[in-house]
Amino acid sequence: MEDIKTYMQQIGQQARAASRVMAMADTNTKNRALTEIAAALQNQSAQLLAANARDVAAAKANGLDAASVDRLTLTEKSVRTMAEGLLQIAQLPDLIGAISDLSYRLSGIQVGRMRVPLGVIGIIYESRPNVTADAAGLCLKSGNAAILRGGSEAIHSNQAIASCVHIGLRAAGLPETAVQVIATTDRAAVGELITMKDYVDVIVPRGGKSLIARISDEAKIPVIKHLDGICHVYIDDEADLDKAIRIADNAKTQRYGVCNTMETLLVAQGVAAAVLPRLCKIYLEKNVELRGDDAARALVPQMKAATEKDWRTEYLAPILSVRVVSGLDAAIEHINTYSSQHTDSIVTDNYTKAMRFLREVDSSSVMVNASTRFADGFEYGLGAEIGISTDKIHARGPVGLEGLTSQKFIVLGSGQIRT
Amino acid sequence: MEDIKTYMQQIGQQARAASRVMAMADTNTKNRALTEIAAALQNQSAQLLAANARDVAAAKANGLDAASVDRLTLTEKSVRTMAEGLLQIAQLPDLIGAISDLSYRLSGIQVGRMRVPLGVIGIIYESRPNVTADAAGLCLKSGNAAILRGGSEAIHSNQAIASCVHIGLRAAGLPETAVQVIATTDRAAVGELITMKDYVDVIVPRGGKSLIARISDEAKIPVIKHLDGICHVYIDDEADLDKAIRIADNAKTQRYGVCNTMETLLVAQGVAAAVLPRLCKIYLEKNVELRGDDAARALVPQMKAATEKDWRTEYLAPILSVRVVSGLDAAIEHINTYSSQHTDSIVTDNYTKAMRFLREVDSSSVMVNASTRFADGFEYGLGAEIGISTDKIHARGPVGLEGLTSQKFIVLGSGQIRT
Repeated sequence: MEDIKTYMQQIGQQARAASRVMAMADTNTKNRALTEIAAALQNQSAQLLAANARDVAAAKANGLDAASVDRLTLTEKSVRTMAEGLLQIAQLPDLIGAISDLSYRLSGIQVGRMRVPLGVIGIIYESRPNVTADAAGLCLKSGNAAILRGGSEAIHSNQAIASCVHIGLRAAGLPETAVQVIATTDRAAVGELITMKDYVDVIVPRGGKSLIARISDEAKIPVIKHLDGICHVYIDDEADLDKAIRIADNAKTQRYGVCNTMETLLVAQGVAAAVLPRLCKIYLEKNVELRGDDAARALVPQMKAATEKDWRTEYLAPILSVRVVSGLDAAIEHINTYSSQHTDSIVTDNYTKAMRFLREVDSSSVMVNASTRFADGFEYGLGAEIGISTDKIHARGPVGLEGLTSQKFIVLGSGQIRT
Repeated sequence: MEDIKTYMQQIGQQARAASRVMAMADTNTKNRALTEIAAALQNQSAQLLAANARDVAAAKANGLDAASVDRLTLTEKSVRTMAEGLLQIAQLPDLIGAISDLSYRLSGIQVGRMRVPLGVIGIIYESRPNVTADAAGLCLKSGNAAILRGGSEAIHSNQAIASCVHIGLRAAGLPETAVQVIATTDRAAVGELITMKDYVDVIVPRGGKSLIARISDEAKIPVIKHLDGICHVYIDDEADLDKAIRIADNAKTQRYGVCNTMETLLVAQGVAAAVLPRLCKIYLEKNVELRGDDAARALVPQMKAATEKDWRTEYLAPILSVRVVSGLDAAIEHINTYSSQHTDSIVTDNYTKAMRFLREVDSSSVMVNASTRFADGFEYGLGAEIGISTDKIHARGPVGLEGLTSQKFIVLGSGQIRT
């Protein structure tokens, strides 16, 4: 335990020192590192897959479930995807050092803001080893140092990826300590990471809800996170029903296990009879279990009864809760009560209702006539995302490079004093 | 204790409910409330001063020090200043609902951001009752609800100001619970306030370092704060010495007890002999105690010896530590080691050094050829400030209305689904 503390303190000190170098690194150097890491991943593909095979074999021997083994497994294709992801990050604009809003004040000083890195980012994630490369790339490009703590089941894969990251950093003349992957699987290391205020500026946990809730509870450092994705689609009585069905189908069934999938469908009373039977036919054909309130069940007899708990549940599965509401006000009320403030969408052709929904729904992403599945860093044009935030402080919604930065004030004077 | 918990939970629930109304309030309604509060403060000036007199009498009877009694005392002029401050906030642009960066993506959706309030702001402050009006005004204009907890010595003054705030809110048709002033002086109320995650979105503590450190340590909610203002001026060897002396004099002596006052002066070796005797003569005439390193003391014999502790001390008093450094690199190194990341300034006519200082000094405000005393919401054009942040997350430097807001993503589609 004392050893872990010492080890983590050393990691922290090294990260802090490296962060100063990274903050000053020019765009060309950072991009060079990214392309060199991408090349190293490709060149060392065989070693990477061998390390991964050790993890996969151990996971199977330990009886890890099939979905987790699947997430853990690397292939030549996924290694190539990792490398391509880094090249894409290299293509993104460098935000660091950008000066905005510089303008004169009456005193004669010019005041503006300069974008700067946060410093040291701690990232805690579960089985997917590709996060090691993605997170390293985003932190690097945004001028931060990173401390990465992957799942214990991926330790060999993560160390193999880390060695490629170090090859790239070295080739660009940047410190290897700019990206450190924690080498121990001891859980005490996480406890240290999330409380080392002096060395870590923000924590980004990625993984299951229980992991994130625990980290968020125990952290002494700001955490960028979302716990749940209880997303809603509200079909208004002035919706284009074809669009509504297409969106509600896509929002639920395009992928079941992700955070921006719809978990509750709200339908205005006025169109419930016209839309629910048609839409639910699609769901039932796709084996989606339906749980509804009485009004919905009256229209779709195959529907089970929903309980209060259903409105608060992120299924991450082919299950959907359905509620018939009187109209926009009831829909907004339901959403602001039960939504996890991740992503909520209205389908309507009424301008006033669309504007009200946008303004009044208090979620990280609010949509009109679009599938909730669009809530994603790539789809939003952020280039990539380190995570999604449903908190209100610092960053809301998908968090890309900008979320890993801050702005300081700069003042340009010519000898001004305050009187 | 159980009563306090119940009381605070109720305050929290009311604030959360009021925050939903405030978030939707239009600009005109919010400005109406601000002008009505200003009018009420003026109309009830006599009652206000009477309530304040009770606090002042009690404070004197309890042996409060003269400076604190001074901060506590209201006058007709300070009531007028409070009212004027609210009218100024009414003049500021309303940021809420503003949409930025709305642009099309390849999928056909438009993605942008809408500025929204944070929700409920908890503000904890010490003896100055004017904070009650200022903070209420800033929270109101930014569409937030506020829970205010002033110093126990100002309880009657704060309650009297609160009743004016409520008159104004009522006149504008807004809920009185949008601004609640905690009516108990029991310290347990603060403990509740800073841990009610469900009801409070951010805490802004204003006051002495020990208060802020304690709150920051115990809070379960994000805190916007600064602990210290250990600010530096670095006089480079290519500085205009007249400007340098004017700035260094102003940064130290214009006001001693505030956070943006210089506490350590750094002087480049090459100009130390030319600048320090002239500058220190001014300080000594103003009875500023000087504490320097050996090189500085060799030039100014009246200087005491500085210790390591001096570099880390915010004097908030007519005391200045002075260090002679070899040049820019040593200055930046000293600042990044000892600065509290509040405000640091370089005096130089060299372009490259100015740019390096701006980029490399990791503080909330970084200045060239200007007095550190400019680090202030009014001077920066923010209109007013709720506080100053030396943290990196969410807001750095003076925090005005924008710091009390966040941005959510909005997506405008015409039936798009994800493929």
